[in-house]
Amino acid sequence: MTINKIEKGMITSAKGFFAGATIAGLKNKHHFDLGMVFSASICKTAGMFTTNLIKSSCVVHSQKVIKSGKAQAIVVNSGCANTCTGKQGMTDVREMARLTANKLGINAKHVVVANTGVIGITLPMRKISSGIKNIELTEYSGTDFASAIMTTDTIEKEIALSVEDASGKYIIAGVAKGAGMIHPNMATMLCFITTDANINGRFLQMSLKKTVDSSFNMISVDGDTSTNDMVILLSNGLAGNQLINNKNGGVFIEALNTVCQYLAKEIIKDGEGATKFIDVIVENARTIEDARLIARAITSSSLVKTAIYGNDPNWGRIIAAVGRSGAEIVEDKLVLYLNNQCVFKSGKPQKFDEEKLSAMMVAETTITIKLNVNRGKGMASAWGCDLSKEYVTINSAYTT
Amino acid sequence: MTINKIEKGMITSAKGFFAGATIAGLKNKHHFDLGMVFSASICKTAGMFTTNLIKSSCVVHSQKVIKSGKAQAIVVNSGCANTCTGKQGMTDVREMARLTANKLGINAKHVVVANTGVIGITLPMRKISSGIKNIELTEYSGTDFASAIMTTDTIEKEIALSVEDASGKYIIAGVAKGAGMIHPNMATMLCFITTDANINGRFLQMSLKKTVDSSFNMISVDGDTSTNDMVILLSNGLAGNQLINNKNGGVFIEALNTVCQYLAKEIIKDGEGATKFIDVIVENARTIEDARLIARAITSSSLVKTAIYGNDPNWGRIIAAVGRSGAEIVEDKLVLYLNNQCVFKSGKPQKFDEEKLSAMMVAETTITIKLNVNRGKGMASAWGCDLSKEYVTINSAYTT
Repeated sequence: MTINKIEKGMITSAKGFFAGATIAGLKNKHHFDLGMVFSASICKTAGMFTTNLIKSSCVVHSQKVIKSGKAQAIVVNSGCANTCTGKQGMTDVREMARLTANKLGINAKHVVVANTGVIGITLPMRKISSGIKNIELTEYSGTDFASAIMTTDTIEKEIALSVEDASGKYIIAGVAKGAGMIHPNMATMLCFITTDANINGRFLQMSLKKTVDSSFNMISVDGDTSTNDMVILLSNGLAGNQLINNKNGGVFIEALNTVCQYLAKEIIKDGEGATKFIDVIVENARTIEDARLIARAITSSSLVKTAIYGNDPNWGRIIAAVGRSGAEIVEDKLVLYLNNQCVFKSGKPQKFDEEKLSAMMVAETTITIKLNVNRGKGMASAWGCDLSKEYVTINSAYTT
Repeated sequence: MTINKIEKGMITSAKGFFAGATIAGLKNKHHFDLGMVFSASICKTAGMFTTNLIKSSCVVHSQKVIKSGKAQAIVVNSGCANTCTGKQGMTDVREMARLTANKLGINAKHVVVANTGVIGITLPMRKISSGIKNIELTEYSGTDFASAIMTTDTIEKEIALSVEDASGKYIIAGVAKGAGMIHPNMATMLCFITTDANINGRFLQMSLKKTVDSSFNMISVDGDTSTNDMVILLSNGLAGNQLINNKNGGVFIEALNTVCQYLAKEIIKDGEGATKFIDVIVENARTIEDARLIARAITSSSLVKTAIYGNDPNWGRIIAAVGRSGAEIVEDKLVLYLNNQCVFKSGKPQKFDEEKLSAMMVAETTITIKLNVNRGKGMASAWGCDLSKEYVTINSAYTT
């Protein structure tokens, strides 16, 4: 029973997966903007999608693919979200799937399509069409794919784990993008996970939902849920392990959780304009749901985020966010720690050296907020980033 | 049936109301920080309070006063919120009420207390005590009171209306403070309204709730609901008009709504770091509740707010906020206007001159967003401000 991180792991680390990327010219930059993943054999699938009622055509299309339970390729462009683009949007997504299927000699129904970028402009299909033709798929191009799906991201986000459990040996690999419009609900940004594990299809979907709820659904950059969010998991079974299902799947879930939490945290670390990583732990809330409400209220508060940007141990703003979270709390029972310093307990401020704590906040890039609710057994972790002037600069000049 | 704005109107414009302020030294500035309002005769009362589960002691105290239906004075300090201060907080609030009652020769049970400022520090009672003694009450000091309740506010927010309806003539006057931690729910910031109208007590409370729901509850600066929010309405009946009740109270409600919407908008215009006022109108939503959800999702979106700061007609962010609002919508039915320019209709982007619209946004300080949902008859207006670098500067250096 071992889970090991593979050095320079990427989406193609799992057996039988190939990837590639090209500069199609969608972003007016000399940067990959179109990528593809292909599996040598057809995959079982799981997926989670945005709950935003405004959905990109790619979300509608890919939901159908995942629902069919079978997929063999993923094609993704950055630079254009293909959202709010009417019938043309769906026509273009189907054409992307068809062009990819033709190139690979597979069925267009088995091609997941994802678009990401600016809302309200249609895809430049001539560039996409020649781009798809130009992509060269290899076993070592996972990082090129990771690069091609980036928008305001500054670094590639990828990981691969080698796993050994009672069923045998297999690999789980994942790649994600996202730096803004991040406050996932049910699914998040773009994330693609591949595994060569032989695994039951229903267990695959159940594992993904469970894992996403405690990883991507617990991060927030700016409180805005995107229209294009999706997490896709493909398993081609080429590892040759015994079938994994809900009886022997504990290690698989643990490994999948490691992949998702790693990528979720990478998204936060690369949050638009972020200078600090905020690690929130809520213990002993009435329920898990309450713990999650509280943890996300803290990471979503503009006032908490600006205080942390200013290295200001202004814990009153944290308590105020807890109070409006919607969770059941009793003020006198709360115990709050900021970077391991108890700042509030028994309804009263605790004495501490404010200058020392502020100096510690200057020195650390991770700020830890721990809250004991003393109401039950619900626990949750959430991750966020500070709100800086740089965030405002980036987002006040994105399209024009 | 006339409603006229009184020139240089203030909280003392209504008959029999007196006010005053002093520099008690709570803010290390040469600025009023302690204020008082007094009515010559006992008042009927109405009030609405924060829904944050963390409540300042002043909220708990003043809720009791309002529940009793009778009040004769209001005492307010800025610079210290007296929140998360344990039993000491409640002791200090009662002492503020007692000192005020002693000075005025009234019952301490009839004194509304409000604190506003930094959370987690106790009131400097010696300064408050001598401050209360120093306050001089006059009929023309309403603006001094408006100044004393300010924290990060840059201007006093006050208004008075002279009203004539079937019941006779009377005056409604209001004062408010607030520039950050503003995303009210049920009540907001500090707002005090006085009237000399003779009015039924139950009708008074009903009028206030109705009015607050469509004014203070529809503004947002930063999505954070404060622990100290309260709106207090006192009527002393000294105008001598016939009793106003739910049968003849239409004009009163209209005038009260004018006072509350005026003050709510003043708060937004003075929003921390705000450079633009955002005026959102949602029409034909399924219900009023849906219309309000949509309007507030737009004014609360960091991405919409930063786009407007950058004069960027990036309407896709508005549509994305609408989609995640929780309201029922159909993408193809939405019609979106930005400064009267139709930008999205029938599920498709509408052609418009982006540079011209951006130039118009540069020129205007009010940005109008109008959305027709085409699903029912629900209407709502909401008001917000942009998110600027200055907001981050102000809030990253508030306590330290």
